[in-house]
Amino acid sequence: MDRVLTGDRPTGPLHLGHYFGTLRNRVRLQEQGAALTLVIADYQVLTDRSDHVGAHVDELVLDYLAAGIDPDLTTIFTHSAVPALNQLLLPFLSLVSVSELERNPTVKDEIVHSRRSSVSGLMFTYPVHQAADILFGKATLVPVGQDQLPHLELTRTIARRFAERYGPLFPPPEALLSEAPLLLGTDGGKMSKSRGNAIALGATADETARLIRGAKTDAERCITYDPAGRPEVSNLVLIAALCLGQDPHAVAASVGGAGAAGLKKMVTDAVNDYFAPLRARRAVLAADLGAVRAVVREGNVRANEVASATLAEVRTAMGMSY
Amino acid sequence: MDRVLTGDRPTGPLHLGHYFGTLRNRVRLQEQGAALTLVIADYQVLTDRSDHVGAHVDELVLDYLAAGIDPDLTTIFTHSAVPALNQLLLPFLSLVSVSELERNPTVKDEIVHSRRSSVSGLMFTYPVHQAADILFGKATLVPVGQDQLPHLELTRTIARRFAERYGPLFPPPEALLSEAPLLLGTDGGKMSKSRGNAIALGATADETARLIRGAKTDAERCITYDPAGRPEVSNLVLIAALCLGQDPHAVAASVGGAGAAGLKKMVTDAVNDYFAPLRARRAVLAADLGAVRAVVREGNVRANEVASATLAEVRTAMGMSY
Repeated sequence: MDRVLTGDRPTGPLHLGHYFGTLRNRVRLQEQGAALTLVIADYQVLTDRSDHVGAHVDELVLDYLAAGIDPDLTTIFTHSAVPALNQLLLPFLSLVSVSELERNPTVKDEIVHSRRSSVSGLMFTYPVHQAADILFGKATLVPVGQDQLPHLELTRTIARRFAERYGPLFPPPEALLSEAPLLLGTDGGKMSKSRGNAIALGATADETARLIRGAKTDAERCITYDPAGRPEVSNLVLIAALCLGQDPHAVAASVGGAGAAGLKKMVTDAVNDYFAPLRARRAVLAADLGAVRAVVREGNVRANEVASATLAEVRTAMGMSY
Repeated sequence: MDRVLTGDRPTGPLHLGHYFGTLRNRVRLQEQGAALTLVIADYQVLTDRSDHVGAHVDELVLDYLAAGIDPDLTTIFTHSAVPALNQLLLPFLSLVSVSELERNPTVKDEIVHSRRSSVSGLMFTYPVHQAADILFGKATLVPVGQDQLPHLELTRTIARRFAERYGPLFPPPEALLSEAPLLLGTDGGKMSKSRGNAIALGATADETARLIRGAKTDAERCITYDPAGRPEVSNLVLIAALCLGQDPHAVAASVGGAGAAGLKKMVTDAVNDYFAPLRARRAVLAADLGAVRAVVREGNVRANEVASATLAEVRTAMGMSY
């Protein structure tokens, strides 16, 4: 049985990009019998924003549960509540050099794009924190995008060096490369809540209709699927295709000469139909936030048990069981 | 009442330099009623050596107890056993920039003197880990040497920034600058166990005599106290003076024309007399390592209680009590 580790930073409710990019695959993995653990990386939002973390955690868990994550099968926990996991950062940091940390592409980008004095120690060390996420429960499989492969490689390096120095303990995790479609926002830019161009999973049918109505298209009446030549129109076609489970070319052909207005009508219906059951479940769950928070508390208890057991093994391997 | 945080890296038994430099002062602080906490920084020896940590911890605790540290009054704990303390590293890292970490004199030295690729992430972040040591129990007073003032300043910065961002929680700790005498090894170099020039607290009277007999002196027969001009002879005079509680000039005058041999005889007696009660206590304690380890286990329980309470306050302040 695969042990899968994945998760999100709690920065707000999830949108269609998250759903078709990762969340749907997680539910599939769960259905296939994988032991899934979802980390809500609340410590990794400290640099961006410090308000409303609690509300963001609520939203994220609502999205998970509404999408089909079953808390009896899958562990959902928050970083800040699992000390034994966080402690692993220290021995793991001893296995990694400063220059290796600097070479991590995400960290490097951050250093290049902002002033060095504005990159925090937390950002600098976060690939090692991620290694602790992956290794505390001895995950065997980590769903990643191409850009996250270097992070996973560092985790594998840490697992290998730990074994060389203290004996084998962590199975090297494998990447599960996703072939997730990249969805654009309704303005043709990157889909992001903060840009107001994202359709949230939990949006109402009316909000969804309004966002799609305002979506950028082009002047050509005949709808085709041509992501390179017509990115905005093709993005709408793709959203509908994903919701309908059809090929995007077939979806485009079915709209044909009905133009942008016809396309938008079709996409709106497809999204609202597809997400209606999820949204109904979400509304029911949102009416009882106490139960939602109990899911996280219970997940934190489980994560602490797993992390404490692993930390005890780490201490023994390192000769630190006094 | 002052809350004092100090400690050692477990690299082997303590020697006379440690005793007159710090350990004696700690016992005094304890006697004056300060709430003392001693951290055994086992995670901070990972870069140097990974063997025998357990034995080194035993030796260190034996030295503490033999010197008069009372485990009913003072908490002795090991880093590796207190997850809630180690977790504080994460929020604290978010309050410090990479360039601030690089500017720390000890870290800077390490980067200058070794290749960048050989400085570990643990070394790079250790001043922040030290801040977690100091702040987890809200220490008000930290005994430091001049060279450690920048570390304490970083801790004060972290406490201040935490307060600015999340509200006041940590009192800014003050430095207790020690006027500790700097003892040299018997070869005139830095006193260090690994150089074989250090008189261990727990050495036998014979070992002590042999080390002092082999100590470097000079050709001048008349003994004087002149640290700049006659460093090796003056160091022996100083050791005797510390043991006898006398002024080093008076000690030198009392040896006078008896030369190096007379000086060494006098120093050997002074050290062996002064440390005889400590060494007797140490031998008794060493016969029951189970009791010594129980002291650490009990200290770890207490440290975990304090750290967990502080971490709960940190979580609440940061809006992470879900």
